[in-house]
Formats: sequence, C-alpha cells, structure tokens
Amino acid sequence: MKVPAAFPGVSIEALARLVGGEVRGVCKELLVGISGIREARKGQLTFLANRKYGQELETTQASAVIVGLQFPETDKPLIVTPNPYLAYARIAQFFAPQPSRVRGLSPRAHRGEDCRIGEDVSIYPFVFLGNGVEIEDGVTLYPGVFVGDSAHIGKDSIIYPNVSILSGTIIGQRVIIHSGTVIGSDGFGFAQDGMTHVKIPQTGIVQIDDDCEIGANNTIDRAALGKTWIKAGVKTDNLVHVAHNVVVGENSLLIAQVGISGSATIGKGVILAGQVGVAGHITIGDRVMVGGKSGVAKSIPAGEVVSGNPTMPHQTYLRTRTLIQHLPEMGKKIRSLEDRIRFLEAEIKKGREKDHGDR
Amino acid sequence: MKVPAAFPGVSIEALARLVGGEVRGVCKELLVGISGIREARKGQLTFLANRKYGQELETTQASAVIVGLQFPETDKPLIVTPNPYLAYARIAQFFAPQPSRVRGLSPRAHRGEDCRIGEDVSIYPFVFLGNGVEIEDGVTLYPGVFVGDSAHIGKDSIIYPNVSILSGTIIGQRVIIHSGTVIGSDGFGFAQDGMTHVKIPQTGIVQIDDDCEIGANNTIDRAALGKTWIKAGVKTDNLVHVAHNVVVGENSLLIAQVGISGSATIGKGVILAGQVGVAGHITIGDRVMVGGKSGVAKSIPAGEVVSGNPTMPHQTYLRTRTLIQHLPEMGKKIRSLEDRIRFLEAEIKKGREKDHGDR
Amino acid sequence: MKVPAAFPGVSIEALARLVGGEVRGVCKELLVGISGIREARKGQLTFLANRKYGQELETTQASAVIVGLQFPETDKPLIVTPNPYLAYARIAQFFAPQPSRVRGLSPRAHRGEDCRIGEDVSIYPFVFLGNGVEIEDGVTLYPGVFVGDSAHIGKDSIIYPNVSILSGTIIGQRVIIHSGTVIGSDGFGFAQDGMTHVKIPQTGIVQIDDDCEIGANNTIDRAALGKTWIKAGVKTDNLVHVAHNVVVGENSLLIAQVGISGSATIGKGVILAGQVGVAGHITIGDRVMVGGKSGVAKSIPAGEVVSGNPTMPHQTYLRTRTLIQHLPEMGKKIRSLEDRIRFLEAEIKKGREKDHGDR
Repeated sequence: MKVPAAFPGVSIEALARLVGGEVRGVCKELLVGISGIREARKGQLTFLANRKYGQELETTQASAVIVGLQFPETDKPLIVTPNPYLAYARIAQFFAPQPSRVRGLSPRAHRGEDCRIGEDVSIYPFVFLGNGVEIEDGVTLYPGVFVGDSAHIGKDSIIYPNVSILSGTIIGQRVIIHSGTVIGSDGFGFAQDGMTHVKIPQTGIVQIDDDCEIGANNTIDRAALGKTWIKAGVKTDNLVHVAHNVVVGENSLLIAQVGISGSATIGKGVILAGQVGVAGHITIGDRVMVGGKSGVAKSIPAGEVVSGNPTMPHQTYLRTRTLIQHLPEMGKKIRSLEDRIRFLEAEIKKGREKDHGDR
Repeated sequence: MKVPAAFPGVSIEALARLVGGEVRGVCKELLVGISGIREARKGQLTFLANRKYGQELETTQASAVIVGLQFPETDKPLIVTPNPYLAYARIAQFFAPQPSRVRGLSPRAHRGEDCRIGEDVSIYPFVFLGNGVEIEDGVTLYPGVFVGDSAHIGKDSIIYPNVSILSGTIIGQRVIIHSGTVIGSDGFGFAQDGMTHVKIPQTGIVQIDDDCEIGANNTIDRAALGKTWIKAGVKTDNLVHVAHNVVVGENSLLIAQVGISGSATIGKGVILAGQVGVAGHITIGDRVMVGGKSGVAKSIPAGEVVSGNPTMPHQTYLRTRTLIQHLPEMGKKIRSLEDRIRFLEAEIKKGREKDHGDR
Repeated sequence: MKVPAAFPGVSIEALARLVGGEVRGVCKELLVGISGIREARKGQLTFLANRKYGQELETTQASAVIVGLQFPETDKPLIVTPNPYLAYARIAQFFAPQPSRVRGLSPRAHRGEDCRIGEDVSIYPFVFLGNGVEIEDGVTLYPGVFVGDSAHIGKDSIIYPNVSILSGTIIGQRVIIHSGTVIGSDGFGFAQDGMTHVKIPQTGIVQIDDDCEIGANNTIDRAALGKTWIKAGVKTDNLVHVAHNVVVGENSLLIAQVGISGSATIGKGVILAGQVGVAGHITIGDRVMVGGKSGVAKSIPAGEVVSGNPTMPHQTYLRTRTLIQHLPEMGKKIRSLEDRIRFLEAEIKKGREKDHGDR
C-alpha cells in the first residue's frame, strides 16, 4: 500500500495550496506520503490534530507537519490550516494509491437483457446483472455483487464484493457500498391472521443519493410502498439496519450496529452513535446527536443532544448514570432516615404523653 | 414495479370475495393496483387501517377503499372487513408483480454429485450446490447462493442472493431467506485449556420449518449436537443472531438485531422486539412479548409482557424508566430530608435539655 | 454427519490416552462416536460435564462416560479426567467427520496475476483471487470467497462461503472464518468540512494471527494507518464489529453482536459478552470480563469483572439492577418520609408555640 518508488514526490507548497493552508519554515525535500506522527518517516508528512500531543512534534521523523492555527514553537516545516484533520483527509486522498481495476465487463460476469452499461466501468467476474440494469460511467462492481432487475447505479460508484442490490434500487453518483451489505431486501411487514402472519408484499424500492458511503454488512430494506430513502452525503458504519420506509436526511452519520425501525424519519446532520435503536414512525430533528446504546422511543426536536434508554437530555443522562451507581447507598440512606424518623416520632409521642402526664 | 398496462383490472366484488369482505357503494371501474391512501391514484384501491386518518377518505384519489367494521360516512366505494390490514396484505399479494425468473439450472451454476433437483426450479448463475443436495420443486436460488453437502430445500422456497446454507441444513416449504444470511455456521463452542480455547466440533444441523421468513444478514448456527430448530411460521427481521441448539417456536417474531444465546428455548407466538438479547439455556414461554433493547437473563412464563435489562413486568418498567430520569431530584430530596431531620433531632434534643433544665 | 459404518471403532483405552485420562471399569466394545448424555446410543461415548446431572449416568444408553475427578458411584465404564469438557472437545474432534473437499484450484475460480498458491489447497468455484495473493498449503476457500490484491492466507486456514477478504489482509495459520464475514472494509473515518464529511482514506490493513476463529457476518475494518490486529487464539462469535486500528489480545473471546470502536485496545484473555459496546481509544486490561449488553465507556484495569452501562463492578451492578426495579417503592417511601417529617415539623412547632404560650 505504498506510493510507487518511482513517484518523485511533491513540494510542501503544492500540498499547502491543495488544502488552502500556509507554509511556515522551509522544506526542501519533496514529500512522498503521509502517516501518523509516531509512524511517519523522513520524506513523509504528518499531522498534529490535537495540541496535547504537541511534544511529539519534536520527536517525529516526518519531514513536515500539518498543524492548526494554534501550534507550538518548532523548527519543523509546517502547513498551517484552520482544520488540520480535514487537510489530512485531503492530502491522504492525494497520496492514496489507486487500486488496480479491471476494465470493462468480465466475460465471467453475467449480463441480463436490456442492460445499459456506461464507459470506463470495472465489472469483475461473478458479478450478476439482472434485466434492465443501468450502470453509469466509471462504476466498479467487485466480484459477487448482485444487481437485481431495473436497478440503477450512478457514475463513479464503487460496490465492494458480495454486496446484494435487489431489484429496482436507485443508487446515486460517487456512492461507496462496502462488502456484504444488502440493499432492497423486503421490509418486515406482516398482517396477523389468527396465530399466523401473512406477508405484506414489499413493492417499494430503496433510493441512495449521491456521495453516500454505506458500511459493511448493512441491511437497508425496500419500502412497503414508495421508497426507503438515504439522502446525499449520509455515511453509515458497519452492521447498520435501516427498515422499510425510513428516510435519513443529508449528511447524517449512523455509527456501527445502529438499528432504525420502519417509517422513522431522521433529519439532516444527525449523529446516531453505536448500537442506538430508533423506534418506528418517529421523527429525529436536524443536527440531533444521540449517545451510544441509546433507545430513541419518541420524536426529538432539532438540535438536541440526548442519551439513555429512553433518551433524555445528555446532561441529565450523565447525572443519572452516576446516581444509578449510587442506588445502593441511596437505599441505605432512606432506611437510615426511616429509623431516625421512627425514633423522632417516638420521642414526640413520649413528649406529648409526658405533657399530658404533666398536666 | 407496476402491473403491466395490458392487465385489464379486477372488479371490487372479486377483491371483496378474495378477502371475505363486503362491498358498500358502487365501483364501476376495474381496479389495477393498491397503494397508500395518499399515494393511490384513480383505478387503484387503498386501505384505511387506522380510523384517525378518516378524513383522508375524502381526499384520496383511490377508486375504492378497504375499511374496518367501523368506518366514517363516505361516498367512496368500500370493501368492509373486520381486519382491513390483513385484507390489504392479501390484495397486495394478488397485485404484486411476479418477478421474472430464469427457468432450470443455469449452466453457470455448479451442481455437485448426487444432487436431486425438482421441477420448475430457478437456479441462477454462480449458485453452488454441494454433493447430495436436494432441491424440491419450484425452488428459486439467486446468484451467489451456497448450498452445502446434503442440505435440503423444500418446495417453493426462495433463497435470495449471497445466502450461505451450510452442509446438512434442512429447509421446509415456502421458506424465504433474504440476502447475506448464513444458516448452519458453527456454533460458538470451546473448552478452556489453560489460556487457550479448544474448538468443540459442531456436528449438529439447522432445521427451518415451513413458511418461515428469515431476514437479511442473519446468522443461525448449527447445533453442537442435535439441531438448532426454527419452527413453522417464524419470521425474523434483519441482522438477527440465533446461537447453537436454540429452538424458536411456531409463528414467533424476532425483530431486527435480536440475539439469542445457545440452547435457549423460545415458545410459540413470542415477539422479541429490536436489539433484545436473550441469555443461554433459558426458556421464554408462549406468547411472551419482550420490549426493545431488553436483556432477558431469566426464564419468562407464558403470556407475560416484559421490558428492561434485566426484564421486569412492562408496567413496572414504564414506571421505573420515568423514575430513573428523576433520580437527580430524588437524590436532592433525600438530602433535603436529611437536613430537615437533622434540624428536628436538634430541636427535640433542645426540647429535652430544656425539659431537664425546667425540672 | 455420522462416522462411516465401516469405521470399526476405537477402544476406551485409546481415547483415554488421547485426553490424558484414566479408565475405570471395563468397556469391551469399540466406541464409534460421542453424543449428548440423553441422545447417546450403545457404542457411543458421552460426558458428564456437570455433577447435578449425575442421575443421568444410570439412564444413558452410552457405552462409556467421560467424568471429572469427582463422580457418582456407577457400573458404567468411565474415562476420568480433571477437565471432562476439554476431553469431550478433543474426543469430538477425533470423531468429527472430515468434510469432503475438492482438491486444487477449480477452473471456475478466478486467479489473478502473480499469485502464489501452496500445495493441497481446496479452492472452489466462484472464488476470486486478486493479484499478488498468497495462499499457503492446505488452505480451503469455499465458493464466493473474495481475496483482494496482495492478501495472504496462512497454512490450513478455512474460509467459508461468501467471505470477503479485502486487499492487503494478512491471515495466519489454522484460522477459521465463517460465512459472510468481511475483513478489511474501510474504517469509518471522515473529516468534517462544513456540513459534509470528507473521507479519510483507510490505507492500513487487517492482520489476524494464528488459530483465530472469526464468526459469521463479522466486520473487521482495516486501519486508517497501520493495522487492525486480531492476535493469536482470539475467537469471535457472529455479527461482531471491530473498527479500525483496534487491537484484540491473545485468546480473547468476543461474543455475538459485540461492537468495538476505533483504536480501542483489548487485552489478553478478555471476555466481552453478547451485545457489549466498547468506546473508542480506551484500553481493556488482560482477563477483564464484561457482562452482556454492557457499555464500556472508560478504560478498565486488568482482571476486573464489570457490567452495566456505563460499566461498574459486577457486584455493584447486581445490587443496582435489583434496586432499579424497586425505584417505584423508593419513590413512595421518600414521599411517605416527607409526610411524616412534615407532621413532625408541625408537632415540634406546636410544641414550641405551646411552650411559648406556657410561659
């Protein structure tokens, strides 16, 4: 996974321009890669994302360092930028090796009838394309990918091995789907008939908009009617479940093992941390953040930060979860208060009886 | 996903007969499909599952509506039935387009030795059948399906792309298994040998009975000895885990991301909501309902409704989970009681001293 | 799944030697298999792992029984050993049927350029090997396995159907990976750019050391830089998620549906029970045990046993979770204490007023 030795490298000035940063100091070397601050070697760039690791600036072997606007004094050549982590992302993309790709449609792939396949695609052996499939320019379909009838995959999307994209699915441009993920499986819908469950045909679709990235072994169910909709820029981690008719708003993040029940609506820029569960038919407003392992049972207004099962304001949750550990003491305290009150009651009674006696 | 234009449609009377319902009003049009009450167009049927949406009856474009026994006054032609949701399911099945199917065994599938393959099967390219596999009539195996040695798949079952059915598995009739699911992986069984773990061979099987539907990316492990057994009519949602030697009773529902530990026994008609975890070797009685995210640590008698981690009666859980949010106040209250008692104790003491002084 | 009828069986003495046990009584039969104490038939061996099932020793049909050092009086022939469960594991391995295997590289598999493939491998149809892949001797790759460029799979490892092993992955010897698992998918790493998320290229790898067993439908992400590292002897159950740059120490057990966030370090011999979630960048010490469904938010020192969300000492957790169910009573008790104090306060006040009046 290294840049080929033949690559002559690039100047610090060129990289600074790429990320809109400013160069401090002089770096005569050409830079050939980027790495962690401890792992970086001579000729590589690194980044200081967190000032608390400032002392590593002196010990790193890197030839130059990306830093934020506030940075420690140093002799190292620097690229200064307001968002060093973002600059790292962009420069790492620049250095990232382009994986080798086959060109065209492998003769060992299966092409259905009436497929429309664009230019410069990479369709590997053991890919199956159903009838009426549309594959736009520059798409990569790795081995074992299944694309059902009438599905559409937009420009420059990358579908990793053993992904199943069921019939009718619409996938936008520059979408990445990691291995083992299932898009367009039937939603979980049954009508009760006495003891047994009668399947409700799931005749809707899944639509995934531009620039989404879907993790490995996700399951995104097709709608009962209409569509399950993952809007532009959404990123999901691994093992995420999205039920039928869910809508996930632009640029939301669903961390690993999140599960969203049917017909829930998730706003834009929402973050659901790992293992969160969301009940059906509720609405989570824009920019809401939900802490790990929380259970969202009711709708949440835009902008709130919540945690817990059921969810509550995150600050309440933090106090609450400390108190839960003190429940045994609380119980003890209550018992001791009872004893003291019982004693007081007896005293008062005695006092009163004495009073009566006194009279 | 539409009924072909050539389809002339069907009368409201025919559809009412199909679901044992009664027609009110007159509908001269032939009906050509079914859709949501807001989405339905002229020529389509819709349904009113919940009376609170009654006003939509007047605004829907649908040509006729399925309603329950209690329905608002309307001029719309109706199909009246005690269970409109069930009627919707059955009529939607009637209208659901039959997906195109290949016929027979694709030459690009692999057929092992001594396989027995029934009539009217659809076995797609890149399907692998091991030795001694039995595939009954009408079975569909989509691309990327693996069927291990000696496995059996019953009549009219549908196995979606990239499902792995390991050796010895027995699958009944009309079973549906969604993409990416693994049936018959080894159970998680090890004997401790000092620091290391020695594998216990998992030599049992998985048996899935008639009319089950297994969601996407499930994992159902084979038994250590004997069988892991999913009984008739069970429906599982996505990303469900069933460990070795588990038995799931008839018509139970396992919602998304449920995990059941080894040798647990689940009764009939049980509902485990999303992200529930069940401990090993316990028994959950018939018709038990377990709320989302619960942790079932002990056996539960038939008919109970429980929630929480660990589970408690659902009513207790509801009270408890409100109180948890009030823990900070409870703590404050206890501290204030302590203060007031301390004051009272001082008062009483003063009183007693005064008494003594008085004497 | 039975030993072939032609197998003549093996003497109890030979099996006792295999496990370092001692024979009590006389067993003239040759033993042909091992089974559960209720299921075992004449000619089979069984085991008594738990003394509380001692009475089954008299009713079992088995011809001989493996027991621990303390065992009930019986006429049955016995193999006595300090760890009967371990002896069961080893003898079951001895009796376990060897699955049939194809030999060599199937012509229907895809072999990339510059691959190095060892002796005595089983590479099934529809396996895809990228360029520069190394497959050592005795490896089995079942149908639908994807092996990315430059990946390495060590001696005698078994990769089950539809596993995706992405480029650069290093897998040790005698590793087992169950179906549907994804090794080396991109870690979940993005830098914020206003509202949108910019992908951080994940250029590291996954390394899985010798004797690991990875369950079905796991996801183990490649490192952002460097490696995600599963050390020797680790066993994971199904649907486990391991994020980028995680390190899991030797012989640790990750039970079903566990999720570990990025850059967490798990020690040796750790047990994470089902559905546990671990936060990023924390350290779990050697031999720590974490109870089911727990949320590990902070580092845990070696040797601790914890539970809960957030985790606390397991003993505290047990007390706490009982008290949670008593919260409604606690609330009632506090209210009653308030009433009683209010009454006492009134009494004292009255007493004081009377005192004043008396004067």
